[in-house]
Amino acid sequence: MTQTRQLHLNVNILHGGFYASAWRVPQADPRASIDIGHYVRSARIAERGKLDAMFLADQPALEDRAEEKSFNGLEPSITLAAIATATSHLGLIATISTSYNEPYNIARRFQTLDLLSGGRVGVNLVTTANGAAAANFGQTVMEHARRYARGQEFAEVLLKLWDSWEEDAFVGDKARNTLLDKRRIHRIDHEGAFFKVAGPLNVPRSPQGHPIIVQAGGSDDGRDFAARYADAVFSVGEDQDLALAYIGDLRRRAVANGRDPRSIVALPGLGTVIASTEAELRRREEELGSLIPLDYAVRRIGGTFGQDLSHLDLDAPFPDLPIPTNGGHTFARATLNFARQGNLTLRQLIYKLGGGIGHRVLVATPEAAADDIEAWFLSGAADGFNLMPDVLPDGLEIFVDHVVPILQKRGIFRTDYRENTLRERFGLPRPTSRYAELPRRTA
Amino acid sequence: MTQTRQLHLNVNILHGGFYASAWRVPQADPRASIDIGHYVRSARIAERGKLDAMFLADQPALEDRAEEKSFNGLEPSITLAAIATATSHLGLIATISTSYNEPYNIARRFQTLDLLSGGRVGVNLVTTANGAAAANFGQTVMEHARRYARGQEFAEVLLKLWDSWEEDAFVGDKARNTLLDKRRIHRIDHEGAFFKVAGPLNVPRSPQGHPIIVQAGGSDDGRDFAARYADAVFSVGEDQDLALAYIGDLRRRAVANGRDPRSIVALPGLGTVIASTEAELRRREEELGSLIPLDYAVRRIGGTFGQDLSHLDLDAPFPDLPIPTNGGHTFARATLNFARQGNLTLRQLIYKLGGGIGHRVLVATPEAAADDIEAWFLSGAADGFNLMPDVLPDGLEIFVDHVVPILQKRGIFRTDYRENTLRERFGLPRPTSRYAELPRRTA
Repeated sequence: MTQTRQLHLNVNILHGGFYASAWRVPQADPRASIDIGHYVRSARIAERGKLDAMFLADQPALEDRAEEKSFNGLEPSITLAAIATATSHLGLIATISTSYNEPYNIARRFQTLDLLSGGRVGVNLVTTANGAAAANFGQTVMEHARRYARGQEFAEVLLKLWDSWEEDAFVGDKARNTLLDKRRIHRIDHEGAFFKVAGPLNVPRSPQGHPIIVQAGGSDDGRDFAARYADAVFSVGEDQDLALAYIGDLRRRAVANGRDPRSIVALPGLGTVIASTEAELRRREEELGSLIPLDYAVRRIGGTFGQDLSHLDLDAPFPDLPIPTNGGHTFARATLNFARQGNLTLRQLIYKLGGGIGHRVLVATPEAAADDIEAWFLSGAADGFNLMPDVLPDGLEIFVDHVVPILQKRGIFRTDYRENTLRERFGLPRPTSRYAELPRRTA
Repeated sequence: MTQTRQLHLNVNILHGGFYASAWRVPQADPRASIDIGHYVRSARIAERGKLDAMFLADQPALEDRAEEKSFNGLEPSITLAAIATATSHLGLIATISTSYNEPYNIARRFQTLDLLSGGRVGVNLVTTANGAAAANFGQTVMEHARRYARGQEFAEVLLKLWDSWEEDAFVGDKARNTLLDKRRIHRIDHEGAFFKVAGPLNVPRSPQGHPIIVQAGGSDDGRDFAARYADAVFSVGEDQDLALAYIGDLRRRAVANGRDPRSIVALPGLGTVIASTEAELRRREEELGSLIPLDYAVRRIGGTFGQDLSHLDLDAPFPDLPIPTNGGHTFARATLNFARQGNLTLRQLIYKLGGGIGHRVLVATPEAAADDIEAWFLSGAADGFNLMPDVLPDGLEIFVDHVVPILQKRGIFRTDYRENTLRERFGLPRPTSRYAELPRRTA
């Protein structure tokens, strides 16, 4: 039987949920963002739904206006370790900043996670445009191109360090007193503009070789980064045409870098508000929308454009603002596209974005949600989605119990896990070490 | 009933065990060092024995001669997270290098661990004298005083960041739309010779406030560091007189820094080889000793002194080598003391040290081991020990099943956990935030 192309679904565990107001609705636990139990429960629901992976966003600073919205109160690599031991198949992806870390430390921590989870880990590399984060490291935000230059070299060093151990380097032969085969462990002696790293790493290869690399930037620099290094992209897809254009561009760039165009799995972000009936849907959307602090949302959209927008009339059409030169370009473009497409006022835009992040929000009954997801998938606008349920865990539970079965019935989503590693699940080839010279062991 | 002074016992999970040859004995799993299951099993045995905490050593480089001895193949903070979810009371201490990390990242990761473990975490701050580690971060080893100056400032920034949240800062009041009380979250605006950190942290306080600080250096700089910042010291105690002198000096320095002399828990390292009979003991010691690669052990002792000792006669008295100026001073002094006390040859020294690390090794039946531990404890030479079983997990299991019950019968070791946090277990006061101005909430 030929395996038909299958949809990939990650869930982005945005602490209390996608909506800034998620923590305030009656079913939400206001302490969820700092409770590891909350993350573990959400991960187990995702695994029950046979989702590909969970995803954790991050920035190394207290989020803007955290006093009135849920925030990432737990460091993501530690959170993943706790979740790894509480799950068996779910992929585990966490975000780290290439601007405020050393590649040796990150290669090691994520390879450890990959080893202990049986090869289920991905690392989402971001460059972090946030000024508060820079100030926690005695820095100011680096200029966009420089951030990405450092990010690319960071990815290069990660891959070299992960390659510093070949498959068969760990031997463990008591009789021959050989724990490791030194000939299969290599220095990397990397010297670049940002890093000088001798290696080797001190962690062996994992069941999938090493973690996959995820990337989320939509700017020109970001696409270039993804085309070189990403196994999966967490992209922004405002509509199918824009998403198709983005994916087409990415695959062309990948080919220009000598890669197979199918070696990047494209997963646009998708906020979800799902309910069984139209009436229940309106009630849920209205409740979540009405609890978003408007001044917070205005400030958040302002932050996207690097401007104070508090003077704007909430009920006038959203203006044609310029894209900021040094911020994250992607969300500014997406926000403008949403405003233009719907000819929206600022207030309508805030509702449409569920508080202002810039991803598409799907407000739909289960059947309609499945239709939308299937249409995007079949058109090639997405290989799947990075789902962001409105409220966690209940928005995820609704998705898993009511949308997933429809997708399964239509034959586009797995009914059980077939693959053990995240790399295999994404259909990506197993990497070989660039340093390997000896033949592989047969025993 | 008055609580008599109680012994503290940590176990140092040195991957396969304290002996360099631990992975080669019949009962050992050669893959233990890279198997999270091995660490979890060891932790559960420690918890069954009501031990205070487990301890993980670390260096960010592949260990010297790792090809023929077990090595730390897993990053310790990730390992602790997995163990935290598999245990309920055991304290969790991991080592990090102050030379190759940013304090914001470490404050955050360990505060996350402390929160998710319910307040059981400690961080062992080391300055890392290892050249291979430096080369993984584009550096050469900093000079001793400079390493310690950076280490002290690192500790200072950790404490400031942990104080940046007061106890009652996390509110979670849905009706009043107040997730956090901003007045109880503070910038730290630290500016020093090594770090500039704005803060605040993005993790709230834990049930013990924040992690305790552990320190392991015995040099003058190291003692100064401990006297200022350490809640517990993992010291080297070659004999009771030297240990008493060390602890006395440390407590005097603590007082000079305005601290209570009892606010530092002193736990000398103690290698253990335990067996029920003298005959079994000799067999076990001989098996472990004979499997130590001699050339590895000679090189390891040479490393301690920063010299190549391969030309030395194994059966001649160990020479009076000078203490290296830029290495770790502590183990060089301890090694010389062991050699002088026993008038040992190099070969005898290697056996005595179980492969050359520099800590005292107790080779004893359970009753004799309890006698030794009790004598040190009652003399004040130790508040307890950082145990390093010869082979893991079985050396730990022998200790827990045969030595711990004797110590319990003698009334100097707990028969069950009374305290939930590591800080309470060590009898240390709960820290208050240096930034607090408002009264504590009563609700």
